[in-house]
Amino acid sequence: MNPPSESLARFRIVLVRTSHPGNIGAAARALLTMGLSQLVLVDPAHFPHPEATALARGATAVLDGARCVGDLGEALEGCAFAIGLSARRREFAGRVLSLRDAAREAVAHTGVGDVALVFGTEMSGLSNAELAQCGIVATIPANHAYSSLNVAAAVQVAAYELRVATGESDVWSAPRFAAATHDDIEGLHAHAERTLIALNFLHPEMPRRLLPRLRRLFARAGLEREEVNILRGILARVDQIVAKVRKR
Amino acid sequence: MNPPSESLARFRIVLVRTSHPGNIGAAARALLTMGLSQLVLVDPAHFPHPEATALARGATAVLDGARCVGDLGEALEGCAFAIGLSARRREFAGRVLSLRDAAREAVAHTGVGDVALVFGTEMSGLSNAELAQCGIVATIPANHAYSSLNVAAAVQVAAYELRVATGESDVWSAPRFAAATHDDIEGLHAHAERTLIALNFLHPEMPRRLLPRLRRLFARAGLEREEVNILRGILARVDQIVAKVRKR
Repeated sequence: MNPPSESLARFRIVLVRTSHPGNIGAAARALLTMGLSQLVLVDPAHFPHPEATALARGATAVLDGARCVGDLGEALEGCAFAIGLSARRREFAGRVLSLRDAAREAVAHTGVGDVALVFGTEMSGLSNAELAQCGIVATIPANHAYSSLNVAAAVQVAAYELRVATGESDVWSAPRFAAATHDDIEGLHAHAERTLIALNFLHPEMPRRLLPRLRRLFARAGLEREEVNILRGILARVDQIVAKVRKR
Repeated sequence: MNPPSESLARFRIVLVRTSHPGNIGAAARALLTMGLSQLVLVDPAHFPHPEATALARGATAVLDGARCVGDLGEALEGCAFAIGLSARRREFAGRVLSLRDAAREAVAHTGVGDVALVFGTEMSGLSNAELAQCGIVATIPANHAYSSLNVAAAVQVAAYELRVATGESDVWSAPRFAAATHDDIEGLHAHAERTLIALNFLHPEMPRRLLPRLRRLFARAGLEREEVNILRGILARVDQIVAKVRKR
């Protein structure tokens, strides 16, 4: 298990298509108050921006170090685990945990690599496609009649829970088998998509719900690295057979 | 013990001499997201103010219901218990608790009457004289090098902890589809075994740990009937391709 400060350095806060630059600044400040440092911005509406700088207050180092990327896939590259924040009930692949339980799980995964916490837009949160890229969903308990936390407020609460959870990390035991990383799992899904198309089982123009259903199933299982290797081995063998048929 | 919603109604958030009206609005929003409603303002610099209204968003009812008083003593009248929030180490006669432990204590006191959580000014927090009016001090764990939470962010974290401590931490769960039966699942594993043998991926004389690993993975996921159908559809398509190769 990492010491707390090393665990904190592993957390990557990802803000997706944030509209208001002030929220980015306030989020940077929230990160720093809890000892986090990694901020990744997916396609922000305005950044850099004076309002972001103003609201970051003393946290300009976090803001200056923020990485801007084009899409969520890029933001999650190299992560061991990704957690999507969502307040709304929705169709989701895997497990839905309270923020507190999700924070404990996040800390456990820092032994493997970076752990992303993904926050959606101010208006509508994360899309289903974006949530599907996350291993679990975390939800912040809130008033059912008014659950709209400001995105920077949500980041503050999450960063606080992560900090508290790192201090409790000695009571949490890591999974026995090596968990698959985010990249392992994305690699598996990309491979499965290619193979299913080659099999004429999946029609690229009419994909319907096949791939999301598979994502949902495997997210629920919580894949291990060796399982990903087994499944990719099967896919590779199918690829060989399909290639033989094609050659005729 | 009160039911959770009654406990939440007992919490009184007290903001002392807040300088920026935007923080009052953001605090009102933070209260409402967590189901709290009582806001008391001790000698605010500007209130009411358009910036407070703007940042309260949908929480105007909390803002409109906010009570303005002249000093902290008046704000605490009728309270069963008062908790002062402080980040800095300082002279204080009583107990200093983590926010989490303080929230549990706060909930316990709601059986007696209202419980106040007192937040100081943006610049310097609460004075020693103000802290002395509180039964305990609560401290939010923070980065020692940069512990300056925005006051509305601190209110958000505290209100969140109060909500979780009352037990109102229900988590939504993803929709469940019809679970696969035992026979569905046995049929899937038998089919997978046949197909993997046909693919020469599994050797019947030397099966090793492949099938038990697949069983373990799918057992962990808790298969649904539709997922079994999807997986058997893929296997059937692979069977067709293998048959084509065999016919040559």
